[in-house]
Amino acid sequence: MPKKVVIIGGGFAGVNLAKKLAGNESFDITLVDKNNYNFFPPLLYQVATGYLETSNITYPFRKLFRGKKNFMFRLGELEEVLPQQKQVILSTGTVNYDYLVFATGCETNYFGMDNVAKHAIPMKTVADALQMRNTLLERLEEASRSTDPVERKKLLTVVVAGGGPTGVEISGMFAEMKRTILAKDYPELKGADGEIHLVDGLKSVLAPMSEKSQQYTYDTLTKMGVKVKLNVMVKDFVNDTVHFADGSTIEAKNLIWAAGVTAMTFKGMPEEAYGKGKRLQVDEFNKVKGLEDIYAIGDTCIQLTDPGFPQGHPQLAQVALQQGDNVGKNMIRVEENQFPKAFSYVDKGTMAIIGRNKAVADLPKPKLFFSGFIAWAMWLFIHLISLINSGNRIKTLYNWMIAYFTKDQSLRMIVRPASKKL
Amino acid sequence: MPKKVVIIGGGFAGVNLAKKLAGNESFDITLVDKNNYNFFPPLLYQVATGYLETSNITYPFRKLFRGKKNFMFRLGELEEVLPQQKQVILSTGTVNYDYLVFATGCETNYFGMDNVAKHAIPMKTVADALQMRNTLLERLEEASRSTDPVERKKLLTVVVAGGGPTGVEISGMFAEMKRTILAKDYPELKGADGEIHLVDGLKSVLAPMSEKSQQYTYDTLTKMGVKVKLNVMVKDFVNDTVHFADGSTIEAKNLIWAAGVTAMTFKGMPEEAYGKGKRLQVDEFNKVKGLEDIYAIGDTCIQLTDPGFPQGHPQLAQVALQQGDNVGKNMIRVEENQFPKAFSYVDKGTMAIIGRNKAVADLPKPKLFFSGFIAWAMWLFIHLISLINSGNRIKTLYNWMIAYFTKDQSLRMIVRPASKKL
Repeated sequence: MPKKVVIIGGGFAGVNLAKKLAGNESFDITLVDKNNYNFFPPLLYQVATGYLETSNITYPFRKLFRGKKNFMFRLGELEEVLPQQKQVILSTGTVNYDYLVFATGCETNYFGMDNVAKHAIPMKTVADALQMRNTLLERLEEASRSTDPVERKKLLTVVVAGGGPTGVEISGMFAEMKRTILAKDYPELKGADGEIHLVDGLKSVLAPMSEKSQQYTYDTLTKMGVKVKLNVMVKDFVNDTVHFADGSTIEAKNLIWAAGVTAMTFKGMPEEAYGKGKRLQVDEFNKVKGLEDIYAIGDTCIQLTDPGFPQGHPQLAQVALQQGDNVGKNMIRVEENQFPKAFSYVDKGTMAIIGRNKAVADLPKPKLFFSGFIAWAMWLFIHLISLINSGNRIKTLYNWMIAYFTKDQSLRMIVRPASKKL
Repeated sequence: MPKKVVIIGGGFAGVNLAKKLAGNESFDITLVDKNNYNFFPPLLYQVATGYLETSNITYPFRKLFRGKKNFMFRLGELEEVLPQQKQVILSTGTVNYDYLVFATGCETNYFGMDNVAKHAIPMKTVADALQMRNTLLERLEEASRSTDPVERKKLLTVVVAGGGPTGVEISGMFAEMKRTILAKDYPELKGADGEIHLVDGLKSVLAPMSEKSQQYTYDTLTKMGVKVKLNVMVKDFVNDTVHFADGSTIEAKNLIWAAGVTAMTFKGMPEEAYGKGKRLQVDEFNKVKGLEDIYAIGDTCIQLTDPGFPQGHPQLAQVALQQGDNVGKNMIRVEENQFPKAFSYVDKGTMAIIGRNKAVADLPKPKLFFSGFIAWAMWLFIHLISLINSGNRIKTLYNWMIAYFTKDQSLRMIVRPASKKL
């Protein structure tokens, strides 16, 4: 009898694990996701800003695993785990497992600030990105009708909270759009003075990167017109005003929240399995502490056994991909009566894009730092080849080329599916 | 002083009129639309079925008229007309006009059937198309989880009401998808028996086309597995059952409503201005009956002065385009102290696509009928060149080529913007 492997979540980690086991007759895979598609989070911000279409960075699971006879897709959300019965209860039914794998990722963390949770724009899912695009486009329209300069400035001012790659990338993008597109397509806004702020609680942007990268990014953003505000925490967001812990404020309608993530807890899982940031504590084989046959991979787990990473791995795509891969290989090894291998993370470097011809990249071995055009070309190339299939690569490349040569984007339609209850 | 021309609606008619006047210093144009983009209705059904992306058939008005100094875009809906004050009240403010032009098109007509209005899927707007795509994809997922064959059949059965081009095109598309995609991507549905029905109240499909076209279409659809039911009117849609006037029924969860449209009435317009189907009655210059300086063009108007069309023109893209053009030219003529010219419709023919290598086309002069591959190639070519700009043409061509050679589509993501109130 093939082993029933149920994977909850089809992000980097979950899909990589499923790919490892797909076609292997020793396993029956069920991939569960609340969406029917995989998506590529590193380019979400380009969907949010109208440079890429949703379809460039998404792909249906069923098509991805087409023809794999041991693969099943199940649309649904995890509601409860019954470890005794080896069952999961989904919003769409109950499924049995031999191995259960959490690849559930993270969600936006508002750190308990209700007003921020209510009114800030998150940047974690495709739905978030589309809502950001629609909201910002509507605020541009509103600003172009407004005759009150104070109101107009608030509508046009964006505060990006969180100086990680997403925050840097999106504020850089806004700075370029302001310069190249706003004046051309919104003649009503000539002379209107919206601002772009990037704020972070730490003492530098891109905290986990090298000092050189941080400095280059800070200088570049500042030169592009982004007001970077460091060492300051958002405390509240009321009446179109962002309040900071140091008492300062910025008047803005638009607060983009890229300031933190948290893993999620699930009913039926023992409390002691969860560690820092609600991440599931796993051993060197990604098995969840104290449980049999339950694994966790990617952002949702924390592994304290890798000697190079005593505080756990960073929550990065590379870790998720490699853990998915390793858990898959281990499952096959065990089936073949071999010993599983402990996970060991290979750091391939980190990078962030700031704007046109501007990016930073840190490579670990040999320790190298790149910036400017060369880092930018590396960033584009690596993100392009990391897309899930050639169709998405071609369409993304096309959109990037048009954007590069025209200094423009065209995906500026405020589109929503009809909300009729059918 | 330039004349203030306010155009309500940016479809074929409204955009063509705006293009005529854009750049002409005798006019200040304000284009009002409830969307910030123009779209191409003939290809909506391909968005609904996942062959094209929204962005292939839409384009932002601001980009379309970029650089035209006498052009303004205003996002908003028309709420009231004040002909005495020469003002329109929009959902987003009040605008003055010298000339007001209704180019408001039509909306779905449910003929007073509440249950149909509530539960059927319309096919008139981009929002409708996206909702159809999401809904049908969710029902496929639901069917693939279902263990009850009766329930499953209902989930997989689609009734398309309306045998016009949209109904024919969409039922043909479903028939092909059922054959090429369903078995590959939904292995759970092997042997499940959903049906595709196309129903119409008239005695043939594609009523305004030639008998040859009608017969070819009927035969082709039937061969493709579509059950065509004619001479029958939908009466109700309750408990997953479509009820017809002749007492017959079809059990189905999916009723697609492409069976009729109606123009809309607006507050402030005199009742006697409206004719059949709520269409505004206009003279040979498209001026609304009994009103000064108010015009109506496209689907929303009815003109009884064209000798070739004593019952008014058909509600087709060609009529809308030509009326927009003529009204624009007449406004310029009047400014230049020339006489305006009466509108006269030039029929360039009608066509409909049924499926892969299958279409019909009627040309009026010389009277010719084409079917099969040649009509299909004509249809593709004409629809491709009719798209609004080269970017959309390239992307559409790319998606069509992929679809043609792979017999597949990939735009199968259930995507919705987040619905958080910001």
